[in-house]
Amino acid sequence: MTSPTSPAGEPVEPPFEVLVSRTLGSGAPLQLAELAPILAQDLADVDQRLQTVLRAQYPQLTDAATYACSTGGKRVRPLLMAALHRALGATTTRPILSLAAAFQLIHTASLVHDDVIDHAEMRRGRPSVPRAFGLPAAIVTGDYLFVRAFELAADYPRAIILRCGESCADLVEGEVLQEASRFDLTSGREHFFRVIERKTAAIVSAALASVAEIAGATPSIVDACATYGRAVGIAFQLRDDLLDVFGDPDLLGKPLYADFREGNPTLISLEAYQRLDPGKKIEFERLFALHRKAPGDLLRLRQLADETGASELVASEAEAWAERAVRAIEPIPASPYRILLERMARGAAVRTF
Amino acid sequence: MTSPTSPAGEPVEPPFEVLVSRTLGSGAPLQLAELAPILAQDLADVDQRLQTVLRAQYPQLTDAATYACSTGGKRVRPLLMAALHRALGATTTRPILSLAAAFQLIHTASLVHDDVIDHAEMRRGRPSVPRAFGLPAAIVTGDYLFVRAFELAADYPRAIILRCGESCADLVEGEVLQEASRFDLTSGREHFFRVIERKTAAIVSAALASVAEIAGATPSIVDACATYGRAVGIAFQLRDDLLDVFGDPDLLGKPLYADFREGNPTLISLEAYQRLDPGKKIEFERLFALHRKAPGDLLRLRQLADETGASELVASEAEAWAERAVRAIEPIPASPYRILLERMARGAAVRTF
Repeated sequence: MTSPTSPAGEPVEPPFEVLVSRTLGSGAPLQLAELAPILAQDLADVDQRLQTVLRAQYPQLTDAATYACSTGGKRVRPLLMAALHRALGATTTRPILSLAAAFQLIHTASLVHDDVIDHAEMRRGRPSVPRAFGLPAAIVTGDYLFVRAFELAADYPRAIILRCGESCADLVEGEVLQEASRFDLTSGREHFFRVIERKTAAIVSAALASVAEIAGATPSIVDACATYGRAVGIAFQLRDDLLDVFGDPDLLGKPLYADFREGNPTLISLEAYQRLDPGKKIEFERLFALHRKAPGDLLRLRQLADETGASELVASEAEAWAERAVRAIEPIPASPYRILLERMARGAAVRTF
Repeated sequence: MTSPTSPAGEPVEPPFEVLVSRTLGSGAPLQLAELAPILAQDLADVDQRLQTVLRAQYPQLTDAATYACSTGGKRVRPLLMAALHRALGATTTRPILSLAAAFQLIHTASLVHDDVIDHAEMRRGRPSVPRAFGLPAAIVTGDYLFVRAFELAADYPRAIILRCGESCADLVEGEVLQEASRFDLTSGREHFFRVIERKTAAIVSAALASVAEIAGATPSIVDACATYGRAVGIAFQLRDDLLDVFGDPDLLGKPLYADFREGNPTLISLEAYQRLDPGKKIEFERLFALHRKAPGDLLRLRQLADETGASELVASEAEAWAERAVRAIEPIPASPYRILLERMARGAAVRTF
């Protein structure tokens, strides 16, 4: 299956209703289906805020910034933020609109700079920003998105701005830690989790803790939301790594094996490396360390990883993190929105795109 | 003359007293010399704030970030901010310490990303951050410095955070505009000034307007300070461009001809291009457009530019901007600090390093 494309060859953005119903899943009970139009409107409102911020005054940057923000994406963060805000009793998303837009921009900025660092050609079925606009433009576009994010965060009290800032510092530290272990299969599980906690989990955690704070939740509920966000982020990333090796490139909108190609040790390659017998271990290590890998090298890495059962292990770790997320929000009063948050956590661990 | 170096080959940072007295100039009247220890302490306090922010918790980023912030530099921005704050009647720099550190970080972040974009090998007598730490680390270090800058800005009211943000947006837009005219001598004066107003002048202007606001100045004084900052920034940049062609590389701490090499049209090359006779104009254009220039090409570009008298023209434009800056702050009550601000404006236009 390929993504739908417009006559100009650009993928058509799925409407927010479609994004939400994909997230709800086909087997969603009626009470969840009733939330769909509400959440679709929430996503539309966040998007509106985001577009307004980007369109202001800077024509030279608007194109690349808008392109970066519109290249599909599942809008998982704003959806989680809106659902959590409502689960905590809010009846409007207005108080968190700027925050949701800010975190969406931070996430996008980091993807743009990641695509520079990782030489990524494609992102969600379209050329990546560095590919489409060039490396210098990609660097400054990422900077611009960070700047706009912080301007949005300025709508909130200092504590929330600082939480937002710390999660960005985590994010960039995660990138440095990942660089430090590139092409190195001996870097180990602990290092890997340190990377993804910072690169992926920290901003989800900070975003949801901030939403709870804005909703006036108690400190223990704020902590619970931070824990939920962290666990969902980790589940999401583990599944992401799995899809990069065993997923469907058409559904993903990008070629497989980016982590093998760039030498990023994920839990799959780390576990496979531990489990291979000595001869194959040497072969795996040798292929993984190649700075330029042929298509046959990538397929062989996948085959070797597959033989070890690493994919089942990573899949079940992702599901275990999803269950941790679900347990974390038990203190939140039961509601259809809490059920949605539970489904989104579990969905992050089993999704195919 | 070469910079002093430590046994490890790293340039020794000049003490703040030396930076201040260089800025004051050798012919400084006694009343200005008396300000030197006060301003040296102000710079030390800003530096202290900056180091504290960078040292927090992120060991993987601290090295590159500290390196980026410590590679010399004339500390023009914090010195201008401290002098202006005192010229407006403040007796302590404490209220603007975080702001001065924030703008120093923003400036440094932009230099780090510039050095990535421009493939700069050297910066102030040392390898540039991308050269010393690699391109991925340089990208995330720049991001990290921006993030820390915004955390510092969170100490101030929303209006100041937004002013800071807008100047960052200007800064990155300036980079995009510069990219758009790379290797293009027909881009013209107007485009050139649009670039430097955004790339250089905007953050100086925003920093000084913010200082005035924090000092409780009237809106018309705030505007005057913004105008002063903008004019000083432009004078500074025009002189910078001049030194890149006609300066002393040992005093500058970097090789000459970066703008010729990278094809950045400065006022020197734009004016030279306008003034050359048809035959030499074609030669100048051809050499300027080369993506790889031999040392002889660079020297020939300089020679052709020199023949046209472009350097005198740019020097006198820089001085004219300095005079505009001096006139802008006439409404500020006369004081030794105002005299210092006048000298710094004029100094920006005639400095040799």
